[in-house]
Amino acid sequence: MLTLDKVYQAAHVLKKVAKVTEVIEAPKINPEAQVYLKTENLQVTGSFKLRGAYYKISTLSDEEKQRGVIACSAGNHAQGVALAARESGIPAVICLPETAPISKVQATKSYGAQVVLVKGVYDDAYEEALRLQKEKGYTFVHPYDDEKVIAGQGTIGLELLDQIPDLDAVVVPIGGGGLISGIAFAIKQLNPDCKVYGVQAAGAPSMFNSHHGHKIETLSSVFTIADGIAVKTPGKITFDCVEKYVDDIVTVTDDEISTAILSLIEHQKLIAEGAGAVSVAAVMFNKVDVKGKKVACVVSGGNIDVTILSKVISRGLQRSGRSADLTIELHDRPGELRGVSKIVADMGANVVSVHHDRTDVDGAVSGCYLKIRMETRDHNHVQQIREALKSNGFKVID
Amino acid sequence: MLTLDKVYQAAHVLKKVAKVTEVIEAPKINPEAQVYLKTENLQVTGSFKLRGAYYKISTLSDEEKQRGVIACSAGNHAQGVALAARESGIPAVICLPETAPISKVQATKSYGAQVVLVKGVYDDAYEEALRLQKEKGYTFVHPYDDEKVIAGQGTIGLELLDQIPDLDAVVVPIGGGGLISGIAFAIKQLNPDCKVYGVQAAGAPSMFNSHHGHKIETLSSVFTIADGIAVKTPGKITFDCVEKYVDDIVTVTDDEISTAILSLIEHQKLIAEGAGAVSVAAVMFNKVDVKGKKVACVVSGGNIDVTILSKVISRGLQRSGRSADLTIELHDRPGELRGVSKIVADMGANVVSVHHDRTDVDGAVSGCYLKIRMETRDHNHVQQIREALKSNGFKVID
Repeated sequence: MLTLDKVYQAAHVLKKVAKVTEVIEAPKINPEAQVYLKTENLQVTGSFKLRGAYYKISTLSDEEKQRGVIACSAGNHAQGVALAARESGIPAVICLPETAPISKVQATKSYGAQVVLVKGVYDDAYEEALRLQKEKGYTFVHPYDDEKVIAGQGTIGLELLDQIPDLDAVVVPIGGGGLISGIAFAIKQLNPDCKVYGVQAAGAPSMFNSHHGHKIETLSSVFTIADGIAVKTPGKITFDCVEKYVDDIVTVTDDEISTAILSLIEHQKLIAEGAGAVSVAAVMFNKVDVKGKKVACVVSGGNIDVTILSKVISRGLQRSGRSADLTIELHDRPGELRGVSKIVADMGANVVSVHHDRTDVDGAVSGCYLKIRMETRDHNHVQQIREALKSNGFKVID
Repeated sequence: MLTLDKVYQAAHVLKKVAKVTEVIEAPKINPEAQVYLKTENLQVTGSFKLRGAYYKISTLSDEEKQRGVIACSAGNHAQGVALAARESGIPAVICLPETAPISKVQATKSYGAQVVLVKGVYDDAYEEALRLQKEKGYTFVHPYDDEKVIAGQGTIGLELLDQIPDLDAVVVPIGGGGLISGIAFAIKQLNPDCKVYGVQAAGAPSMFNSHHGHKIETLSSVFTIADGIAVKTPGKITFDCVEKYVDDIVTVTDDEISTAILSLIEHQKLIAEGAGAVSVAAVMFNKVDVKGKKVACVVSGGNIDVTILSKVISRGLQRSGRSADLTIELHDRPGELRGVSKIVADMGANVVSVHHDRTDVDGAVSGCYLKIRMETRDHNHVQQIREALKSNGFKVID
């Protein structure tokens, strides 16, 4: 059974390997609240997962430790278990789907785990992990549906109340539910007045649906940039914890998550992964009631693929008018391209790329389209450039 | 005169507004050293500049405070002075060149300063600031060549020795030299055995040249992505401090700086600006002797424009083989584009963009070029795709 004793024991055990992550004030996330970030993205391995995995392993018998552990994950749990096992001096086998990003495979290997790449998707890797567990007698370290793992994640709740004793609310990302179960349990034991809110991606609302329907529901598919919390079915233990201790669950869209990631970069100099930023997105877009409150957003991890990060930044730049694409219809005669270039330059924009194709099939026979990507100051600046082009006789399509 | 007393006084005064920034272990920067990051990018205003500015203002007489302060900067110093003045309850005027990025202008305004946009470049804004100072009786807060400002930055040195008592070396970015002067002075007073190294951008080596030539030298031009330390002439006070207390100065290239920024993102989940990452680049590329040593890199700031950040990431992805461009010569006949697409897809790469122009003037009359940008796993993966295309009869140009 989950007890506060276990959470305190986990906190003691974790002193050896994990950091008490800093709480950072974030005044620009929501001006109507006093917002703090619990920076688990700065935790060793780049996410909170080390906490649960290491505590779980610490409770194994000597004989179990000798046989080693096995886990299945395409992400943070793999790295958490791998490092926890190494620090405990025991062998670890991690099953990953062969489609896992190479950066995550390399990170897991770098912590000394034996990596088994399994053909297929996550479910196939999970089956293989169960098979290997039975065959070799490994202990299976579940990513969330395990009381020891939950107790380990609960140490974040203890730290939060220690760091901000008069905290009004904490906002926590939910995938399978291990993180929020631990935090909610710890916080409600110590201060039942502190609200605990969960956040899921709108494209993977398994716990959201289950909580609002009061029974465990399974999604047929998930789709979100917050891949770390794209879970189809909540755990049984975690669902019960959420029912008992969590005040409400909300969802945020991928656009809201992207905006939160960009804001953390610009205003806090911090990298969060999609799953880690959903808590910030929920507070930023007033999905939970935080007006006038002291609220902590758990930024659960920072292991975002830089390719995705690059896309998030591009999207954010376009949305804030700092990058803009224009399509202009040109007459097929000399000097037209130069004319456009001059106007854009005179307006102080910086041309990033130009696509000019005189044989474009969609254009009128005597004309063609010019596609320009520019660096701009803001939406107003983009509008001024459009106006300048129009007043010089150019037809701006979009 | 600069005394240790002043640095300790600054540390006391700064408790009200600045953070004792965390020191974070960074094992992947250089495996042969024990590397720590002094995270001034997480300082209030996103850089260390608040320290010097606030301490300077705290030493003004009541009458001087009433008249207010003026400063000139296109970057971090503007924000540091603006916030320092607001927290001291005094007026601040900041002169910025009108070409300053809008994000920096907005940040400075958000701290309550009066912003004067001056036509021209930094030097013009500086002249205007001096003119206004004389006219209105403001106190000029110099960005680096001022003993009080230097004492304020020196508090970082005190913190470092407190956080890592057996530190062997500290590596510090140099622009005008205020930051390293303060840190070197404080550290050498307390522990003369701790080495202090300075780092400049190869495209703006003013203190580097001056130090190695033993007299102040002025550069005719500067060019680097580390805009925060692109200074043409070192200060007089700071040059003297560097001569007395700094062990060596080295330079790093823009490519090395970009790699350091990307590594901080991927492994530490931290955003550094170019100027803030030069210390990390120096340790990463063994520009200073840190083998077997405990070394702290001062990450001086994180105020990087997201447009530049986006470019740094793209460059880093290309360099590490996670993004690749191929140009392929095609025969002008049906099915060629489909053939290439199939091979690339079969090899597990993800096509980002395709440019296919049958009228390309450089191509042979019967052919054309296909330009593809792909997401790839690593250099090896790119090579495999090239081989697969070649063995299927396609000519890969580059």
